Amino acid sequence: MNEKLLEDCYLLGRFDDSILLLMRNALFPWFVLVPQSNEIEFYKLEHDLQAKLIEQVNYISAFIEDNYSIDKINIASIGNVVSQLHVHIIGRSKDDACWPGVVWGTKEFKPYEAGQVKQIKGKLAEAFQGIFYMQVDKI
Amino acid sequence: MNEKLLEDCYLLGRFDDSILLLMRNALFPWFVLVPQSNEIEFYKLEHDLQAKLIEQVNYISAFIEDNYSIDKINIASIGNVVSQLHVHIIGRSKDDACWPGVVWGTKEFKPYEAGQVKQIKGKLAEAFQGIFYMQVDKI
Repeated sequence: MNEKLLEDCYLLGRFDDSILLLMRNALFPWFVLVPQSNEIEFYKLEHDLQAKLIEQVNYISAFIEDNYSIDKINIASIGNVVSQLHVHIIGRSKDDACWPGVVWGTKEFKPYEAGQVKQIKGKLAEAFQGIFYMQVDKI
Repeated sequence: MNEKLLEDCYLLGRFDDSILLLMRNALFPWFVLVPQSNEIEFYKLEHDLQAKLIEQVNYISAFIEDNYSIDKINIASIGNVVSQLHVHIIGRSKDDACWPGVVWGTKEFKPYEAGQVKQIKGKLAEAFQGIFYMQVDKI
């Protein structure tokens, strides 16, 4: 796993084929999926892995809608700074710090408080029983 | 079709289930796919339509790699300003005007010259014979 990704994010857990991270910025529900692949470009992913990744994007999008008060979901594969393939799934609200602009590159920041990340992990484990695991042995 | 999208973009043509646009900014090969759907959120698209949209994202990504000198492809579904569901597929280069930042919201701009857009349409029609149509009767 790319070191900058691990530095910028909390490790939440994993689905079968990808790691789920949370950006260390409590201003936005900002999740990052990292598929287990050496491909840099989304379109070069092997078909089944790409389909699974999109399925997980759908899961996380629904999770954000269900657990946060948001107006729009932003999804992106960018990778200009960190080349390891990763997909952002971000809940956006009309009164958030960057609306209607995008969040990438923003200086707006608020740290998570003690216990908040653990709480999110618990909600994910409950929402995705049997397909999401908090325990990650190898990243 | 949302009026702002049509104002900001050239109409290139269509695949079976979506319209293909080109952002009116020659600084970046910046394509926009608009699926025929009333859903605002990507994750709510009906499964087959979502799979087709991803297939078209793959096509356009490969087209960009084949026809432009680029270092990275950026893909995103944002929709904070224009809510009609659309997906950006953008070829990025390490020496482009926004690198390594994102292009959304940039003031950097260069118009296309006469004939350039027609040339891109021709290349698309050649690359995607039988699945891409320059003629769009209804948008």
